[in-house]
Amino acid sequence: MIAEEILNAATLSMFENIVFQAEPAGLYDPLRYMISIGGKRIRPSLCLLSYSLFKDELGDEIVNPATALEVFHTFTLIHDDIMDRSPLRRGQQTVWKKWCEDTAILSGDVMLIDAYKRIAKAPKAVLDKALELFSKTAAEVCDGQQYDMEFEQVDRVPMCDYEKMIGLKTAVLIACSAKMGALVAGASEEQCEALYRYGYELGMAFQVADDLLDAYGDQKVFGKPIGGDILNEKKSWLTVRALEKSSDPEEFLKVFTAKASSPDECAAKIDAVKKLYDALGVPEDARAEIVRYSGKALEALEGLGFPESGLKALRVFAERLVGRAR
Amino acid sequence: MIAEEILNAATLSMFENIVFQAEPAGLYDPLRYMISIGGKRIRPSLCLLSYSLFKDELGDEIVNPATALEVFHTFTLIHDDIMDRSPLRRGQQTVWKKWCEDTAILSGDVMLIDAYKRIAKAPKAVLDKALELFSKTAAEVCDGQQYDMEFEQVDRVPMCDYEKMIGLKTAVLIACSAKMGALVAGASEEQCEALYRYGYELGMAFQVADDLLDAYGDQKVFGKPIGGDILNEKKSWLTVRALEKSSDPEEFLKVFTAKASSPDECAAKIDAVKKLYDALGVPEDARAEIVRYSGKALEALEGLGFPESGLKALRVFAERLVGRAR
Repeated sequence: MIAEEILNAATLSMFENIVFQAEPAGLYDPLRYMISIGGKRIRPSLCLLSYSLFKDELGDEIVNPATALEVFHTFTLIHDDIMDRSPLRRGQQTVWKKWCEDTAILSGDVMLIDAYKRIAKAPKAVLDKALELFSKTAAEVCDGQQYDMEFEQVDRVPMCDYEKMIGLKTAVLIACSAKMGALVAGASEEQCEALYRYGYELGMAFQVADDLLDAYGDQKVFGKPIGGDILNEKKSWLTVRALEKSSDPEEFLKVFTAKASSPDECAAKIDAVKKLYDALGVPEDARAEIVRYSGKALEALEGLGFPESGLKALRVFAERLVGRAR
Repeated sequence: MIAEEILNAATLSMFENIVFQAEPAGLYDPLRYMISIGGKRIRPSLCLLSYSLFKDELGDEIVNPATALEVFHTFTLIHDDIMDRSPLRRGQQTVWKKWCEDTAILSGDVMLIDAYKRIAKAPKAVLDKALELFSKTAAEVCDGQQYDMEFEQVDRVPMCDYEKMIGLKTAVLIACSAKMGALVAGASEEQCEALYRYGYELGMAFQVADDLLDAYGDQKVFGKPIGGDILNEKKSWLTVRALEKSSDPEEFLKVFTAKASSPDECAAKIDAVKKLYDALGVPEDARAEIVRYSGKALEALEGLGFPESGLKALRVFAERLVGRAR
């Protein structure tokens, strides 16, 4: 029952202490720091879970590629935090804030290279396919970040463009994680693609859920102050949907882009924007969308002869990832 | 006679128009731009030259990895230019200056990933070794950049530390380029290591030559304003050597760190520092060092049964790379 161990986080300790080169410490300390401040380890867990559909034991052949996915994800956080000027992540200072921008750039670079070193330890028989999947995904994540930054420069983003962006920025890496486990385990092309689809739809659900929780979550559970996206005037699924539904988008934008400095003004702005969301039924739409994506994720797994215990684990995983927002 | 074609730059056109993804243009235009502003294509040329010791034709199996080396090198330039706050490269605006820092960070990232996509096209039989060599080298280049930045924070750097730094920042990538050609061609371990050694020593000679030309070169040939390192108070081989030899290092540092704003002041400062270099015999020492490293580079190739025509080409290549400084 490896799947259960993975779900119960019994295997996650291997991603708490990822070992990096010691010297130069000024370059590698930020990598250790970023791993130490935590994270849900969604991507490596999913990779192991997917692998466990086909194999009964977890060895280096899968631990290394799974670790690569976490290392890559963490690299993107280091660089994204510079670009987004985010001072905090998981309640701790970001790398550029704790050290400096130059360190964040270079430590991020070497972290991306480190991820490749670990992917390169995939079994020789699938190395070319694992690399191709990984590089394709990595480039897509950059494409997604680029679209995200471009969207910040325009007033309105159509939902289809927003979906494409979060697909690239968030969903493809979760899809890659699910597929990587199957690929390393020697699964068939069809099985690999089904797991990719599961991961992709789940990733979409996860992003919509994250956007919803940012405005409607419980701060203690969510781990970040509620309303951050609203205060940063970040284009989220909620905003895109609100602008799509609103009969007076100009009025919505006026409230959404109103200046707020003092804590009272900020709280009032969050409240005002959420009232508009509520009036338009945006939270209900988001919840329906999460259910729709989650359903598509589970559908993708049907009819492939996966063991029932494995399917159950993937259902539990999906439920945990997005269930809190439903 | 492929070696001759490579030396005569007949094959270099393949590195003038490296094709990148079209969209998002905001992400990939900087890559096209950086390749278009030129460069000596030292690394891919050396990779092809090394390959041509063993093979008579250049196919995709070597052109892709060779291109990866140029793409990787260009990625390092994009990120280094941010960290060094350099506004110009090859007389043109740097990416962060022409676009912005965020674009330079993200375009650099995707360029590093692009380099991996090309390395991944090495023949399957040597893919794991090619990847290992490439990732090891890439991480070392980052280590070198880190040491370089750390050296800027201290007054004096011992020559052995400086040599280690330029070894990592410059020499290992040239070494990797020479070895990659042999590796892809299926050369023996011993031959691969000999070419690595040739590239490493040549890279060391190249960096000392570059440092020397920065102060003593002909601007028309060198392509950059002369004295840039002095005005930026950059620790170069010349400075490290001068501080090692000087009986009054404090006095040297006083002149070296003197403020200079107007063009006249700048010219006077460059002149004053070069007078100190001259009095200490630093340029002669640099020339001797270049000869010593070049000699070691050529020695590394002896006794391995390489064809005489190929050895001749590698000699010509070395002479062209560092001969202008002797």
